[in-house]
Amino acid sequence: MAPKNENLAARVHGPNDLRLEPLPIPEPAFNEVVLEVDTCGICGTDIHFLKDGGFGAERLIRPIVLGHESSGIVRKVGSSVTHLKVGDRVAIEPAAGCRICDLCKVGKYNVCMNGRHSPTQNTDGNCSNYFAQLADCCFKMPDHMTMEEGALLEPMAVGVYAGRQVDVRLGSKVLIFGAGPIGLICLIAAKAMGATRTVILDLEHAKHRLEVAKKLGVTGVIAIGKNDSEDDLVRKIKEVLGGPADRVLECTGSQPGMRISIKSTRNAGRICLVGLGNKDVQLPMVDAISREIDITTCMRYNHDYPAAMEIVASGLVDVKPLVSHHFDLANVHEAFRVAGQGEGVKIMIHLIPRDTNNKTKFKN
Amino acid sequence: MAPKNENLAARVHGPNDLRLEPLPIPEPAFNEVVLEVDTCGICGTDIHFLKDGGFGAERLIRPIVLGHESSGIVRKVGSSVTHLKVGDRVAIEPAAGCRICDLCKVGKYNVCMNGRHSPTQNTDGNCSNYFAQLADCCFKMPDHMTMEEGALLEPMAVGVYAGRQVDVRLGSKVLIFGAGPIGLICLIAAKAMGATRTVILDLEHAKHRLEVAKKLGVTGVIAIGKNDSEDDLVRKIKEVLGGPADRVLECTGSQPGMRISIKSTRNAGRICLVGLGNKDVQLPMVDAISREIDITTCMRYNHDYPAAMEIVASGLVDVKPLVSHHFDLANVHEAFRVAGQGEGVKIMIHLIPRDTNNKTKFKN
Amino acid sequence: MAPKNENLAARVHGPNDLRLEPLPIPEPAFNEVVLEVDTCGICGTDIHFLKDGGFGAERLIRPIVLGHESSGIVRKVGSSVTHLKVGDRVAIEPAAGCRICDLCKVGKYNVCMNGRHSPTQNTDGNCSNYFAQLADCCFKMPDHMTMEEGALLEPMAVGVYAGRQVDVRLGSKVLIFGAGPIGLICLIAAKAMGATRTVILDLEHAKHRLEVAKKLGVTGVIAIGKNDSEDDLVRKIKEVLGGPADRVLECTGSQPGMRISIKSTRNAGRICLVGLGNKDVQLPMVDAISREIDITTCMRYNHDYPAAMEIVASGLVDVKPLVSHHFDLANVHEAFRVAGQGEGVKIMIHLIPRDTNNKTKFKN
Amino acid sequence: MAPKNENLAARVHGPNDLRLEPLPIPEPAFNEVVLEVDTCGICGTDIHFLKDGGFGAERLIRPIVLGHESSGIVRKVGSSVTHLKVGDRVAIEPAAGCRICDLCKVGKYNVCMNGRHSPTQNTDGNCSNYFAQLADCCFKMPDHMTMEEGALLEPMAVGVYAGRQVDVRLGSKVLIFGAGPIGLICLIAAKAMGATRTVILDLEHAKHRLEVAKKLGVTGVIAIGKNDSEDDLVRKIKEVLGGPADRVLECTGSQPGMRISIKSTRNAGRICLVGLGNKDVQLPMVDAISREIDITTCMRYNHDYPAAMEIVASGLVDVKPLVSHHFDLANVHEAFRVAGQGEGVKIMIHLIPRDTNNKTKFKN
Repeated sequence: MAPKNENLAARVHGPNDLRLEPLPIPEPAFNEVVLEVDTCGICGTDIHFLKDGGFGAERLIRPIVLGHESSGIVRKVGSSVTHLKVGDRVAIEPAAGCRICDLCKVGKYNVCMNGRHSPTQNTDGNCSNYFAQLADCCFKMPDHMTMEEGALLEPMAVGVYAGRQVDVRLGSKVLIFGAGPIGLICLIAAKAMGATRTVILDLEHAKHRLEVAKKLGVTGVIAIGKNDSEDDLVRKIKEVLGGPADRVLECTGSQPGMRISIKSTRNAGRICLVGLGNKDVQLPMVDAISREIDITTCMRYNHDYPAAMEIVASGLVDVKPLVSHHFDLANVHEAFRVAGQGEGVKIMIHLIPRDTNNKTKFKN
Repeated sequence: MAPKNENLAARVHGPNDLRLEPLPIPEPAFNEVVLEVDTCGICGTDIHFLKDGGFGAERLIRPIVLGHESSGIVRKVGSSVTHLKVGDRVAIEPAAGCRICDLCKVGKYNVCMNGRHSPTQNTDGNCSNYFAQLADCCFKMPDHMTMEEGALLEPMAVGVYAGRQVDVRLGSKVLIFGAGPIGLICLIAAKAMGATRTVILDLEHAKHRLEVAKKLGVTGVIAIGKNDSEDDLVRKIKEVLGGPADRVLECTGSQPGMRISIKSTRNAGRICLVGLGNKDVQLPMVDAISREIDITTCMRYNHDYPAAMEIVASGLVDVKPLVSHHFDLANVHEAFRVAGQGEGVKIMIHLIPRDTNNKTKFKN
Repeated sequence: MAPKNENLAARVHGPNDLRLEPLPIPEPAFNEVVLEVDTCGICGTDIHFLKDGGFGAERLIRPIVLGHESSGIVRKVGSSVTHLKVGDRVAIEPAAGCRICDLCKVGKYNVCMNGRHSPTQNTDGNCSNYFAQLADCCFKMPDHMTMEEGALLEPMAVGVYAGRQVDVRLGSKVLIFGAGPIGLICLIAAKAMGATRTVILDLEHAKHRLEVAKKLGVTGVIAIGKNDSEDDLVRKIKEVLGGPADRVLECTGSQPGMRISIKSTRNAGRICLVGLGNKDVQLPMVDAISREIDITTCMRYNHDYPAAMEIVASGLVDVKPLVSHHFDLANVHEAFRVAGQGEGVKIMIHLIPRDTNNKTKFKN
Repeated sequence: MAPKNENLAARVHGPNDLRLEPLPIPEPAFNEVVLEVDTCGICGTDIHFLKDGGFGAERLIRPIVLGHESSGIVRKVGSSVTHLKVGDRVAIEPAAGCRICDLCKVGKYNVCMNGRHSPTQNTDGNCSNYFAQLADCCFKMPDHMTMEEGALLEPMAVGVYAGRQVDVRLGSKVLIFGAGPIGLICLIAAKAMGATRTVILDLEHAKHRLEVAKKLGVTGVIAIGKNDSEDDLVRKIKEVLGGPADRVLECTGSQPGMRISIKSTRNAGRICLVGLGNKDVQLPMVDAISREIDITTCMRYNHDYPAAMEIVASGLVDVKPLVSHHFDLANVHEAFRVAGQGEGVKIMIHLIPRDTNNKTKFKN
């Protein structure tokens, strides 16, 4: 299939104002490649931009292209790029640091304040036909991986990083709060790191997501009912795990999620806060401190694409059960509507017809 | 001076009901020593028991002897004890694990749930003439250390542990919230670990404590005014430190303390919550997560008495400026009143007349 | 089957002088249980005692009962023991610290110098009908685990600890030097922690062990030929792994093992030395230092029995392929001969007829 | 003083063939500055290049400018540089990664294999009048710091990094092997991190260096005599420290240094190998493994210039006692002769007359 000669992009102009509009096709800088985007998953952050006008300190101050969970085909190569060539199929890491600040120098480029993190208020995402990215952020995929798997490396990298931050160990009892794509991918990561008992919680209306968790081999699921008190849920969690959690991956950013996480963790246990949600949350800190619970956080990933690629490519983990819906770019509004409602799990937008660039085809 | 033949103890029976009453003189178990307590400092935890009937999950369910920052003289030695003998001057670590649970096995005895931590609801403190303690929790002092310095090893051990947990490094910019004894000792520890810029905050009426911080060499102090907003204080902190804090030691357990700590920390910085205060606190967690701030906690100490002894005995640090008041046991009510009001800094109770057991005398 | 009324023990008196002789049946101290040993695996350390008269600083200074990879049935319970009762099937951790030294206090009981580590020069092992052990070192097994799996928790705990020490991560490329039981169990641990590419090396005459590694799912095996140079082997390792190793588990203690480990590790990679072998070894340290390779070590385990139990009991790992030979106690000399020759992999001695205490039977 | 219009450089052409010869004055790339070098210290690595034709895997394959411990004045500024301007006084970090490889991404630029590390076989050092360096590797000095102190930040950064790698703690007992500039700077770092007992060893003929250690406050020095056995030295070390070392900084790269380091370390202690020396060394690894000693390494520094600057600028440490000799560039041969003989401690070459650029003058 010939590369397109237009660059349609899903760009947000204001609250719930998503437009599909043409942008110039980019040229690569010396250290970049230009990619024709093949597949782009929709993430909660994209939804935050569309519905809430931003997340954290990031606000919508100009129209922004959404999307950052993508794979694509290299179409142009900058002058100093040596490890990629035209036609390569790559997974696209959408975060890059400035490389020269104190944070980048010590490997914390993921929270670099001058970085190119897609999408943030100054940096476009890549739900567009073309995208110029730093070449070292593009990871060539083996032939047997599909473009969808490539796009899923983005959340998988979050899971790998979150698992590292919270230090899942062989035999850990792990609580995962929230069964959205990030919660499910954290489940995948935790199991791959050796967790033997896992429990995942979500609201009753997200039962379809808890079903996916079961397919992924979770030990137990808990559908949170309207009348469940914090203590009820803590008790249920301990029943599934056979005691308090050693490690917690909190993927909702909600006050109940963080409160129950703290209360369900054993003395000297460890929590990683992965999800962004309520700006201010009321937390039981005397409990956390007097039982010496560690609360760590993770933002994006920290050069975790290579590991994410390894575990997907080797078959150690299977991320395909996360994908629930497929849309082409023309239907991007419907795709975002479905994603925003929490229907399904991971919604994929195919900017190139599905399977065009897969050696291993999904469909016959 | 001959050992006493009675065992008067400062025992709390209920809210604000502190009694000085005789208890039996204990006998040592095989692995214990019986100590004649010389000096006992008053800590916030003791005050919590007296005023609030407990702290964290610890409630006053029977009368409890207060006090846990003590030094003493070995008077009796259990049958299997080899490293101590009658007459030894020791600093008394008041926390001990059960030695057989999962937490103790991995070195986290400080949060052992079956431990002998003084004072907790099931374990007496040692503001009493005699106290039986596990021999391995008693650390022999060199001759030139005073009994007061021995008692001060307890808060010093907290400072050592907090400094380790928060990972103060050479050149760290450190924020300390709260200029009570624990805040001040954290300042001492942070400076001894190589922090070059330090700032400490407390309320205006605690200016006498900020003065002590200046004597200890803090870079800058901030007296929190009634009308200071969070953002005002964050700005002032950054002015003193020349930027956001790398490391924070939060020693108040208060909501403003924790909020300002988070807001003042650099991306990928680290906070240690040391103080116990408000049960529930409202925290800016989107800010914490999106800037990947680590929030660790510390409870008691983790075999930090040897290091605390080393740095005091060697002269690397001087803890004496913390002591503001001296009382004998007969005046324990007044001592607790002064401590509870936040007058002074560290209040010392001398169960044996001051300087009796010091080679290096304070007074002539 | 009624408990025995004699206590036959496999006791070494001097080089190659192993005797099967009766010892008194022990009584439990207050914190101990007395176990009737069911199954005991033979380990390299036992062989070192028998052939070389010791290992490391441990020398044979009196007759010592060998054996330390055991499971058993609780027959007597000390007065303060609450978590075990007569008849319980337990895996026996043979290492215990003194609980009061600096090392034990911080969780490093495995290298406590006053510990009860079986077998060392002052502490008997447990290839005997009866063995008194600290109750907290006895881990109750679920019904579906076999007594052999219980015995295998000892090497499994080594693997868990080694994996932790070397910090195997998702997607790590792991080199394992030596395909003996410890090498194989390190392979199991590394894979369970998320290693995606693994290579194991052993001498040509140990090909039966490399075959077991294949069954366990290793990516590639290398049989070391007589004429293979270090550089040849480094090249072959990199071919299997697709580059240098991220992590290395050296399980031979040999000079070639350590040299090749260093040379095969990537810059800033990490090696864990697990095996004890040559007292002095010549190592390429300029290479190690200039490429900033971390060399860590592991001795015994560090409260890793619970994790070992979890991963075996949950089915995450299968340790049964390691067992190659079965003997009863009467044939202990032949068992040690086979083990000493390196025939087979793990040699099991059944002090109680095999399957007596298994719910899930091996044989019909 | 007007900038020079020639660029004389101390360039090594072969074994002991050092030439002072003119090179073109460089122009800055967009992200570089061009510096007029003020002061350059001579390091062991420079000597290795001159005497041995390289170090580690680095060989002299073309003429190389020596020198990498330098400070200078910014003379030209690249187009994208914002934090520096002409005339700024800076300390020059001579190591830089490629910023795009796996190592750089995780903060290990110091062992990046495509980096610009001065001097290595492909990268010139900066004992030359002019030097173009990446702007983010140039750290602006406060007015009160001297250009010599700026040059000394290079070894100071090594000390900061080594101290971090070996994890010196409050109250650590630290052994330092080798009293050359790096050993002495490690002593400075260890003390600033809270080490209370320190011992440093060197050969008898280096007594002038042990004298400097005394001035820096070491607890004890040991001059190694011809007839001292390893065990003699281990015993002497333990006498000074009052027991085995918790932490060791090995700064010689020699076999005796590493052997004695291992033997003098406590169980579960930690060694950092800092010095590069003998290619192959025979080490007592059964002792190291059976006592679970961690052997870490450090190469260059890992963004430790900011901390080095902080501790020098704040006065926490004083590096000036290390400087023993001063030469101007014309006398570079003599400077290298003195350095190569181990006379003195740190030899400084002043490419601009000493004190020209110091506000705080050394001489009146």
